Amino acid sequence: MKDWCDGRLQDSAAVRIAPDDRGFTLGDGLFETIRVSDGAVVHGRRHLARLREGAAMLGIPALRDDEAIEAAMHQVLVANRVAQGSLRLTLTRGPAPRGVAPPASPRPTMLITAATGLTMHGPVSLIVAGETRRNEFSPLSRIKSLNYLDSVLARQEASRKGADDAILLNTRGMVAETSAANLIALIDGVLVTPPVGDGALPGIARGLLIDRGLVMVAPIGPDRLGHAELLVVCNSLGLRGVVSLDGRSLEVRPDLIERLTIGIREP
Amino acid sequence: MKDWCDGRLQDSAAVRIAPDDRGFTLGDGLFETIRVSDGAVVHGRRHLARLREGAAMLGIPALRDDEAIEAAMHQVLVANRVAQGSLRLTLTRGPAPRGVAPPASPRPTMLITAATGLTMHGPVSLIVAGETRRNEFSPLSRIKSLNYLDSVLARQEASRKGADDAILLNTRGMVAETSAANLIALIDGVLVTPPVGDGALPGIARGLLIDRGLVMVAPIGPDRLGHAELLVVCNSLGLRGVVSLDGRSLEVRPDLIERLTIGIREP
Repeated sequence: MKDWCDGRLQDSAAVRIAPDDRGFTLGDGLFETIRVSDGAVVHGRRHLARLREGAAMLGIPALRDDEAIEAAMHQVLVANRVAQGSLRLTLTRGPAPRGVAPPASPRPTMLITAATGLTMHGPVSLIVAGETRRNEFSPLSRIKSLNYLDSVLARQEASRKGADDAILLNTRGMVAETSAANLIALIDGVLVTPPVGDGALPGIARGLLIDRGLVMVAPIGPDRLGHAELLVVCNSLGLRGVVSLDGRSLEVRPDLIERLTIGIREP
Repeated sequence: MKDWCDGRLQDSAAVRIAPDDRGFTLGDGLFETIRVSDGAVVHGRRHLARLREGAAMLGIPALRDDEAIEAAMHQVLVANRVAQGSLRLTLTRGPAPRGVAPPASPRPTMLITAATGLTMHGPVSLIVAGETRRNEFSPLSRIKSLNYLDSVLARQEASRKGADDAILLNTRGMVAETSAANLIALIDGVLVTPPVGDGALPGIARGLLIDRGLVMVAPIGPDRLGHAELLVVCNSLGLRGVVSLDGRSLEVRPDLIERLTIGIREP
């Protein structure tokens, strides 16, 4: 495989992240996972816009212009012959001396890696995570930062309990999202998804579904979640039905998944 | 400089963190910052015990025994001729394919780096961070994980407001800690520090001060913080007085700092 790092294509086995890179030492960075279909990135501009918003929030400067990043992504796709799969862009504040305070003049690290195939397929079983909560009081809940350990903990809890994934509640007990996807619930005949203010990441797929009038934003408390007629998880790699929540069986409607999938795929 | 990585001493410039190391891609790891005094690590066993607790919580296996880690730390100190300074141990889940779910058989990364000199000296000015909160509902608040971005955001807010550091409140508005240290307050003549349940990291220096009867654990709400007679911040690198909080001047008592410092230094 070939990755893009330090401004050029390199063999993946040769790519070196410095041990003092703040992405490694403090999780000081961001990432995007972008779907690749028929050899082209899907909704690349939306992903780059979100990456820029995150970089602005963290104060990570000097991101190249969209055209340059798109050219780099294209090189990675071609070099790895990826037709169906995904790209991951990782942007960190780069190497720096030890300490929490960022350096005055950061030299950010940008890494682009490719993966073939898609891991999002088939329905999933969910639990509600009991061991951790998503922090809606932190601005990090609104950007795709490298601080992903709460999601890792939730996924591990799901695995221990025999489920595929977990729903994270926020600190007030409202539904936020799953470990790596937004949640959509059919409640009283309406498709709803939790607001960003409740700790939901503003996912690209989620945003498209809202923009196109397919899903409404509404808070989901534990009671309403318990009465959901069906659940769907969605991220940039795709949509999946939910077969069960905490052991309670749920209906999976392939026609609905298909309709929402079409809604996401349109440019 | 020389670092310990992949089980051996290497030139720092040659140490390579793999681009798929989960410490880099997801902040999936832990660290310890350990004081070095007269060429010896201070309270090494306490730091290693905390690292083990964090690794157990995250499910990161295969940490070497204390003697082997201490031997590695000693090699790093000797190779870099560090007499006064610090060591940083970073433990991650290691390289893995993409995805939130941890690999079935992780190959953890252990990195040990040295720094000369101490950055903890002189009194500090503090603000109360308004832009982010510490998540006391997450078990991550009780371990020293690589997910350090809330602290970075708080430190940046402090810097913008002309202060040295920031106090983070938890999601219920109670005092947790500062961006990289525990907080001690003199309130009604008693030295108190917030409980771990309020989002305070169980710091090594904090633990020693509590164990030795020098500081009591008690919740600190905003009102009590506003009435603190004086404040001290402490971490493994040392203690510092606080000259001001949100612009309000505070007394600094070098005799008290000295007494607490002696309390931490005893083996």
